[in-house]
Amino acid sequence: MYPVVVSRQVISYKNGNTQNVSDEIATEYPLTIFLNDEEFATLVCTPEYLEDLVVGFLASEGVIRNCDEIKDVLVDENKGFVYVETHSPKTFSTKFYSKRYITSCCGKSRQSFYFFNDAKTAKKITDKTAFLTDQDCFRLMNEMQQDATTFQLTGGVHNAALCDTKHIILSRMDIGRHNALDKIFGYCLKNSISLQGKVIAFSGRISSEVLLKVAKIGCEIVLSKSAPTELALQMADELGITAVGFIRNDSFNVYTHHERICAT
Amino acid sequence: MYPVVVSRQVISYKNGNTQNVSDEIATEYPLTIFLNDEEFATLVCTPEYLEDLVVGFLASEGVIRNCDEIKDVLVDENKGFVYVETHSPKTFSTKFYSKRYITSCCGKSRQSFYFFNDAKTAKKITDKTAFLTDQDCFRLMNEMQQDATTFQLTGGVHNAALCDTKHIILSRMDIGRHNALDKIFGYCLKNSISLQGKVIAFSGRISSEVLLKVAKIGCEIVLSKSAPTELALQMADELGITAVGFIRNDSFNVYTHHERICAT
Repeated sequence: MYPVVVSRQVISYKNGNTQNVSDEIATEYPLTIFLNDEEFATLVCTPEYLEDLVVGFLASEGVIRNCDEIKDVLVDENKGFVYVETHSPKTFSTKFYSKRYITSCCGKSRQSFYFFNDAKTAKKITDKTAFLTDQDCFRLMNEMQQDATTFQLTGGVHNAALCDTKHIILSRMDIGRHNALDKIFGYCLKNSISLQGKVIAFSGRISSEVLLKVAKIGCEIVLSKSAPTELALQMADELGITAVGFIRNDSFNVYTHHERICAT
Repeated sequence: MYPVVVSRQVISYKNGNTQNVSDEIATEYPLTIFLNDEEFATLVCTPEYLEDLVVGFLASEGVIRNCDEIKDVLVDENKGFVYVETHSPKTFSTKFYSKRYITSCCGKSRQSFYFFNDAKTAKKITDKTAFLTDQDCFRLMNEMQQDATTFQLTGGVHNAALCDTKHIILSRMDIGRHNALDKIFGYCLKNSISLQGKVIAFSGRISSEVLLKVAKIGCEIVLSKSAPTELALQMADELGITAVGFIRNDSFNVYTHHERICAT
């Protein structure tokens, strides 16, 4: 098992004095995915829950829709390689991978989806089954931060948590913001977790990429202690997701679909 | 000109009270690069200094080595397209783009460079021309944060600054951490800025990607208020870069090549 945190001797400066101290540092681990014997992508990640990460990533990229399509996943931790075999050959074309999704209206108005695979996999959330009070928002964010032991140790990772409206169900961390979400996505797919009434709490900013992951996982609400971007909010508007940001101490902002949040 | 920040009506919750307020939100702007008429990559960025960004990105990816190789850059801001023409056709093969760089020693020990283009373009820094006192580290980091007006407004962007040992020369921000560095890289290439004795101050974590950008730009020291990752520190060791992290109030840590930092 490749370690998630390592110790390192560093020189600490404080008030003009120097000292040799031991410091805890988060690792970064390159993981190359081979899909049916072809090199597909390299993720740089925190080396835990690798199988969940790969399953979540492949679903997120539109390569698979559910776990049944996967015949075998073999992780070689020493080499940082993972071999994924699917039952049927994937018609997935690398020609479109990471290519911009240019619609016919382009040039008139800016389209919200700009990558081909996002347009294919991000679902519009029509359910209204998750409702939070302001106290729920504070509690879920606090629980997520208390779970974030590696962050507290190293300051170097992002945390994501899958929650119901009362408590955290699952908490994952990664040096890559999207990886933490893909680890949750993969877990949900592998264990057929229902996303009804579920919420994502996230330690980082709500960027378009993060918002799309939340839509792909299928959650109604995303909570963050940080800022959103404008593109993320446009997507949240269209995809029916409630975006709550700047959750700090006794205040927060609701940016979109505020009908799911109420003051106590 | 596409705006960098927009206003949006949000619902603010504070102590159980709700209020409609206007909030400033950072924009995200998809920019698709066409290289000699072929779609090359889409960056999602803060829409300013787009030409610098594209030049820095292409240099960073090893497509160009200097600005003379570029015949023309045409930015279509409405569409979010940029057309780059080079003097000679680029032999750059998309076959290797973002592919993992697998050396013969792989499996014995983990290699530090894992992407083909990084192994090609990251330079080892052998110069020792930048020396900072602890007071310099605090001052440069403070100057960078004072420059970071958009961050203060929106909380949603990263800042990077090119500094000499005394002051900031150039400050750039972006919602994408690497974009801020590529904007600096592009500016340096276009204006033939000497990197002798130069320092990068950065608002985010020192990840392997950030460290590689610093090496590609050609700076000797990187300063951050945040944590480094272990892979970034291995690279800093090998590439001869001084990594300074957790610069906060009156203390910081020096992780690698500490000979460039001294206490006053």
